[in-house]
Amino acid sequence: MTAAAAVPFVSVAPELEAANQRYAESFTGAQLPSPPSRKVLVVTCMDARLDPAKALGLELGDAHVIRNAGGRAVEAMRSILISQQLLGTREIIVLHHTGCGMQKFSDSEFRTKVRKELNEDVDHMSFLPFNDLRQSVLDDVQLLKKSPLILNVPISGYIYDVKTGLIEQV
Amino acid sequence: MTAAAAVPFVSVAPELEAANQRYAESFTGAQLPSPPSRKVLVVTCMDARLDPAKALGLELGDAHVIRNAGGRAVEAMRSILISQQLLGTREIIVLHHTGCGMQKFSDSEFRTKVRKELNEDVDHMSFLPFNDLRQSVLDDVQLLKKSPLILNVPISGYIYDVKTGLIEQV
Repeated sequence: MTAAAAVPFVSVAPELEAANQRYAESFTGAQLPSPPSRKVLVVTCMDARLDPAKALGLELGDAHVIRNAGGRAVEAMRSILISQQLLGTREIIVLHHTGCGMQKFSDSEFRTKVRKELNEDVDHMSFLPFNDLRQSVLDDVQLLKKSPLILNVPISGYIYDVKTGLIEQV
Repeated sequence: MTAAAAVPFVSVAPELEAANQRYAESFTGAQLPSPPSRKVLVVTCMDARLDPAKALGLELGDAHVIRNAGGRAVEAMRSILISQQLLGTREIIVLHHTGCGMQKFSDSEFRTKVRKELNEDVDHMSFLPFNDLRQSVLDDVQLLKKSPLILNVPISGYIYDVKTGLIEQV
C-alpha cells in the first residue's frame, strides 16, 4: 500500500493525451506569432462551466486569457504587466460569472476548513471570496483602472450566466 | 482631447459581445453542476496560441483551468486549494509551452523596463520567468507535490508545442 492509495482515483491524463493526438492531427496554428492578434486580455474564473474562447468567439492567437478562482484582478497583476509591456495587449475584459463558488464562503470559514482538513495554517492567505457578484466585477475593473501599473486602455467588466451562456456588461 | 486618447485603440468588446450572442443561441450547458465532472485541474499559460480546452479535449463542465503568465504553480496555490477543498478536483496537470515569453526576460530586466515605461517601482514583485522550459515544468510539479497544502493526487507535467499542437509529458 503506497501513500498514493490514500486518494483512490483513476488519472484522466491518458485520455487527455489521446484527445491531444487527435487535436494535433488537424492543427493549423503553426505560424501564429506570440503577441495576441486582437490585442485583448481576458481575466476570468477557472470555473469548469465557462469556456472563454468559445463564449467570446476567440480564435487561436487572438487573446491572452488569465484564469484563477473568481477571476480576481489583483492576482492577475503580474500577468497583465507582462502582457501589456512585452506582448502588446491594449484592452482588458474582466469576466466573472453566476453561481461562482467564491460567493459561498468567507476567508475565515475557508481557513478553518483548511486547518481541519490539512492541519495547516493558511491565515496569511486571502482567498478573495466575494458576496456581491456585480460589485466584484466593478471592484476588479476599478482596481485595474486605478493602478499606476496598468496602461490607460479600455477595461470593461461582464458577468457570464452559466445557465444561458450569455454575457452582460456591468 | 481626453486622457484615453493617449492610447488610440478600437475596442474589440463589441465583437466579443456579438460572438457571445451567437454562442448562447446553441448553448447546452444549462444543467452543468459547479464541481468539474472529470475532477481534473489544469495549470497553464495565458498564451494566445494555446486553447487548453481544445488541445486536451475538455468539454464544458469537465475541468478547472487556471492560467497565468508562464502557467506558474506558485501563483495558482490559492485557486488549487479552493478547487480541491471545495469543488473536489483530484488530479493536476501542469502545462507549459514552447516559445514562452517567460523565457525571454529576467526579473531584473523587466523591473528596469517597468521603471522606464511607467515610472513605477516593481522591485517587490517577482515575475516568475524561467530559462529552461523542461525544468520549469519539473519545478512546478515538484512544488505542488511537496506542498502540505496540496492533496496527494496524481500531478503530471507536460510541454505543449505551439508549432504542432502536441503535448509531451516531462
